[in-house]
Amino acid sequence: MSELAQQVRSGDVRALARAATVVENRQAEADELLKELFPYTGRALVLGITGSPGAGKSTLAAAITRQLRSDGKTVGVIAVDPTSPYSGGAILGDRIRMQDHHADPGVFIRSMATRGWMGGLARTTTDMAVLFDAAGRDVVLVETVGVGQDEVEIARLADVTIVLLVPGMGDDVQAIKAGIMEIADVFVINKSDLPGADKLEREVKASLSLAHRPDNWTPPIVRTIASDGQGIEGTLAAARLFYQTGNSRSRAREIWALRLREMLRDRLIERFPKEQFDRAAADIVARKSDPYSIIQDWLGSHA
Amino acid sequence: MSELAQQVRSGDVRALARAATVVENRQAEADELLKELFPYTGRALVLGITGSPGAGKSTLAAAITRQLRSDGKTVGVIAVDPTSPYSGGAILGDRIRMQDHHADPGVFIRSMATRGWMGGLARTTTDMAVLFDAAGRDVVLVETVGVGQDEVEIARLADVTIVLLVPGMGDDVQAIKAGIMEIADVFVINKSDLPGADKLEREVKASLSLAHRPDNWTPPIVRTIASDGQGIEGTLAAARLFYQTGNSRSRAREIWALRLREMLRDRLIERFPKEQFDRAAADIVARKSDPYSIIQDWLGSHA
Repeated sequence: MSELAQQVRSGDVRALARAATVVENRQAEADELLKELFPYTGRALVLGITGSPGAGKSTLAAAITRQLRSDGKTVGVIAVDPTSPYSGGAILGDRIRMQDHHADPGVFIRSMATRGWMGGLARTTTDMAVLFDAAGRDVVLVETVGVGQDEVEIARLADVTIVLLVPGMGDDVQAIKAGIMEIADVFVINKSDLPGADKLEREVKASLSLAHRPDNWTPPIVRTIASDGQGIEGTLAAARLFYQTGNSRSRAREIWALRLREMLRDRLIERFPKEQFDRAAADIVARKSDPYSIIQDWLGSHA
Repeated sequence: MSELAQQVRSGDVRALARAATVVENRQAEADELLKELFPYTGRALVLGITGSPGAGKSTLAAAITRQLRSDGKTVGVIAVDPTSPYSGGAILGDRIRMQDHHADPGVFIRSMATRGWMGGLARTTTDMAVLFDAAGRDVVLVETVGVGQDEVEIARLADVTIVLLVPGMGDDVQAIKAGIMEIADVFVINKSDLPGADKLEREVKASLSLAHRPDNWTPPIVRTIASDGQGIEGTLAAARLFYQTGNSRSRAREIWALRLREMLRDRLIERFPKEQFDRAAADIVARKSDPYSIIQDWLGSHA
């Protein structure tokens, strides 16, 4: 076993930060490191948190972290921000309100923004969770900024997916919510002291009564006021309940099948040089050729 | 040339609907059809519209459509909704407010929701734009629901990307906007009679003064009240101005290079049977193996 892998295993926080950089930048040694650490995973509870902008995801993540720390558990936080295709993680850095744990080695936070075209964040998030798990973190929180498809998929990579709702949002937000209703293992109604909390709970219940999950789980609805820490123990209890049913294991098999497919696709494509794509794209724009014929040619010659 | 391709070329609306289904479902004949039609593309102006939820994207798309029809232009609308990973396009159907064109063959609308894992929508949107272009539509509008990374990437597939903003949104929405500031070729401030429109315009101008685009284009800011049709001619004029600079051609080369990469990845992966992924995923969850070793094995045996 490499020195870095040993240090990560021992829970060394600086080694974990170094390893996270190796993984995030996809450095050459990333795969070997992950391969060494993977057998030591499967112990952490990985919680995904998603929900509408403004619902209080960061506040909930902070409250869960505080609760876990007071229970003596160690925490890793992966904060994912795929909304900014160019500018990197600056926004997210501002958003994280976990300053109370700044000097606490029991809380390790990693922010990740997108790098380029789609798909990369899901891969890096999974690999980062492997690292945190192998490093002995009891709980790994995966927090996403919004409710785009990427973010929904990333939240689903977790053992348990928590969907955060908040009373009194307009119609558009309700429409967005429809996209995340199906992925919730636990619903949290945050800011539940606001008017409309009862109405929202009834709406969620109504939509649950129409849904039929293959695993027959009925997602519990927990009310919180995350800023005051209210309802956080209930949220964690609900998440653990789902985890104990074993449903997250069959989900994990699905997710890994998809992840393997992505990993393989990425590796296969690396065999084709960038210039080949650029030249062909110029031909397409000049209408000298078409993309469909070009792909057929390439596949023929690499069959 | 196949009969369907000929009919699409002649502008036959029912043939276009049939062809769109062939492309959306990725039926076997889709590639041949697109290959036949591709040489007849490059004539349409493809406009991407994206922006925060609630900014009025559907209303703007409807107003642009009305304006183009009164100018005697034909329109194709591709309405993309990637927020719902499971439920399909029901939400989007409700959102489209183009009923006034229901009986007008000069307006052809296609709604698309996501199918499964990431990436598919970008591919289908490009292919659909190829169809509409070959069918002689003067303008193709690509409208996306939200501002997730997928949607940003889809809006960028257009010749000209319009980013829609609206005065008086909260902090979270401002944060989301940061992700779409860089992709705008034209800014539209909708509902510009609301308080805060001046402030929003100043903010956009301030952020533009900090940005430096490789093509040296300064995105114009157009004010609209889309529900009244105000500012729509100005929006179209701004979009055409960008198109005439030729900057969209260099963008098109970039986009096609990325699209070719995706197409090739998809085709390469089709050679591996689904069962192979499922079996390996079960081994991973049982910690009998790790994903990184599995991929190395597969690549070795298919090298």
